[in-house]
Amino acid sequence: MQEFGFHTVELDRSIPAVVILDQTRLPRQELYLTLTDEESLREAIYHLKVRGAPAIGVAAALGIYVCMAGKKALKETSSFQKEFSRVKDYLASARPTAVNLFWALERMEGALKQALRDGKSVPGLLEALEKEALAVLEEDRQICRSLGENGLRLLKPGMGILTHCNAGALATAGMGTALAPVYLGQQRGYGFHVFADETRPLLQGARLTCWELSKAGVDVTLICDNMASMAMKNGWIQAVITGCDRVAANGDSANKIGTSAVAILAKEYGIPFYIAAPLSTIDANCREGKDIRIEERAGKEISEMWYTHPMAPEGIKTYNPAFDVTDHRYITALITEKGILSPPFTASIRQALSLPEG
Amino acid sequence: MQEFGFHTVELDRSIPAVVILDQTRLPRQELYLTLTDEESLREAIYHLKVRGAPAIGVAAALGIYVCMAGKKALKETSSFQKEFSRVKDYLASARPTAVNLFWALERMEGALKQALRDGKSVPGLLEALEKEALAVLEEDRQICRSLGENGLRLLKPGMGILTHCNAGALATAGMGTALAPVYLGQQRGYGFHVFADETRPLLQGARLTCWELSKAGVDVTLICDNMASMAMKNGWIQAVITGCDRVAANGDSANKIGTSAVAILAKEYGIPFYIAAPLSTIDANCREGKDIRIEERAGKEISEMWYTHPMAPEGIKTYNPAFDVTDHRYITALITEKGILSPPFTASIRQALSLPEG
Repeated sequence: MQEFGFHTVELDRSIPAVVILDQTRLPRQELYLTLTDEESLREAIYHLKVRGAPAIGVAAALGIYVCMAGKKALKETSSFQKEFSRVKDYLASARPTAVNLFWALERMEGALKQALRDGKSVPGLLEALEKEALAVLEEDRQICRSLGENGLRLLKPGMGILTHCNAGALATAGMGTALAPVYLGQQRGYGFHVFADETRPLLQGARLTCWELSKAGVDVTLICDNMASMAMKNGWIQAVITGCDRVAANGDSANKIGTSAVAILAKEYGIPFYIAAPLSTIDANCREGKDIRIEERAGKEISEMWYTHPMAPEGIKTYNPAFDVTDHRYITALITEKGILSPPFTASIRQALSLPEG
Repeated sequence: MQEFGFHTVELDRSIPAVVILDQTRLPRQELYLTLTDEESLREAIYHLKVRGAPAIGVAAALGIYVCMAGKKALKETSSFQKEFSRVKDYLASARPTAVNLFWALERMEGALKQALRDGKSVPGLLEALEKEALAVLEEDRQICRSLGENGLRLLKPGMGILTHCNAGALATAGMGTALAPVYLGQQRGYGFHVFADETRPLLQGARLTCWELSKAGVDVTLICDNMASMAMKNGWIQAVITGCDRVAANGDSANKIGTSAVAILAKEYGIPFYIAAPLSTIDANCREGKDIRIEERAGKEISEMWYTHPMAPEGIKTYNPAFDVTDHRYITALITEKGILSPPFTASIRQALSLPEG
């Protein structure tokens, strides 16, 4: 977000190029990458230089437009369309589980097909792609702002707010999902005190959440994941807000590993636990949390990554799930761009998605 | 423990010297240090080369004997006693909050005074000190074994056991406190599956617990602290056992930061939560948990320690409590060398310590 002095992903129309903030360099270096071809775009998504479901979707939409704009040799609409398909498949392979990546690329393909049906020539096709990509970006910003406005109504000035992982401006093209209410509150003098779980093993809380909140002047305190219980017991936390990767039809929510523990602690200490969930993350075809497959990642992320030398005996067995599922009974409410969804979630989710009654 | 192929702290009578395994080098290097003077002994305790309340007590007891044995110039009992006092104060200053350090040094001073009362000359004083130091070491081993036997009665073959931090052989001169039942079970074919929380920020679980359990052939899986909820939800954990640093008269127990979160999760998932507590860690003068002062440590332990470069923005605010207090209502039982203490703890603790009824 330009208003915070950085931008996660945006279009430089003059080249054109996708410009991203390289998140693997944070917090020690604020380095922007100007990406103009499919290899560098795919690599940036694959290596988490741009991350967070909404931001990945925006990068993909802008990216495929930029790639096609760079192919000056394509004069025929048929060869243009063929090349588009190839680039789309190539970019889609960057992160096979990122739903927003496919969603954004499908949407761009839909815009291309419409332009072809409208009889546009190659410059017209490029114009349609640029327009659609900018719409994806603008909608993401609007959704963030709506989540922020809706979330802020749940909060009071001076509250202590705990968050886990990073669901902030760095995960979107806008002001974030879970952190959007924090930023709006900050602009309006709410004086929140944020506690950021460091979020092992990839440290998105320490590296990213602390970085962006500090930059925006928000009061933020870094803690280890295992210190959340103490912060709550001390009476410092009045609300927990996290993002999510996928919400099932009953409200069970998959998010970064550790979220379910924070939710259980919040319940035990009588603190409301909110999940900021753009409607696009609600998967009505997924009945409940146990239908969500949990990605397991390499154990070296726990034992070796970031360190000067390995911190566990060589060959140690590990269990490294990237996500966990928070049971709906620990969730006080879902914050969406269409309002607050309260329990029972099966009904409130159906209504928000305008689905027929079960 | 020699039976596991390493020893945390022991006496080399031939020099004499205290021989310790340098725990700051684990898991990458198994380096023994031979300590014969007060400077190196104090430095080893101060820099956590030997750690864990029981092991520190043993190191101090052996250490003050070794220091005095090295002072060949002392021929008079009066100068011997004066020098003993100076060395005692010097060693005691290594870790001002380590109760076992003072306890062990006081006990050694008691033995010295008794020998003086008995009219011993310097060689006799040294003999008395050696005998007392070896008694401290031997008693520690016996307490560990009794904790193991008592704890094992709470467990069944094949159980999954979660532990936090390190309360194993590396924290004592024997087979540990929380891990003692695991080791006895291992010897008797129980086939436990242990899950070790890595224990941020100092990583005692990853570096020490994984190392000693692996070495003993115990099946151990390393997880990040924030993954305990998933391991429990998966049905992999049938009991949680941790050590403790101080138990209040009502059963509230201070232990490594993160223990209270594990206890709350265990309660939520219906898993018994046990604390291995040598009676020496029960502080009957401390009424309840909130009377226990919690040490806060430097924030760089969270943001910088072990890493190739800082993982949070420079100057980030941190909260780094070294311990937390687990409320007695989350504790299923205390495992002591005199048996299992069950709720209500106020009564069972009084009985175990042979205190009058309140």
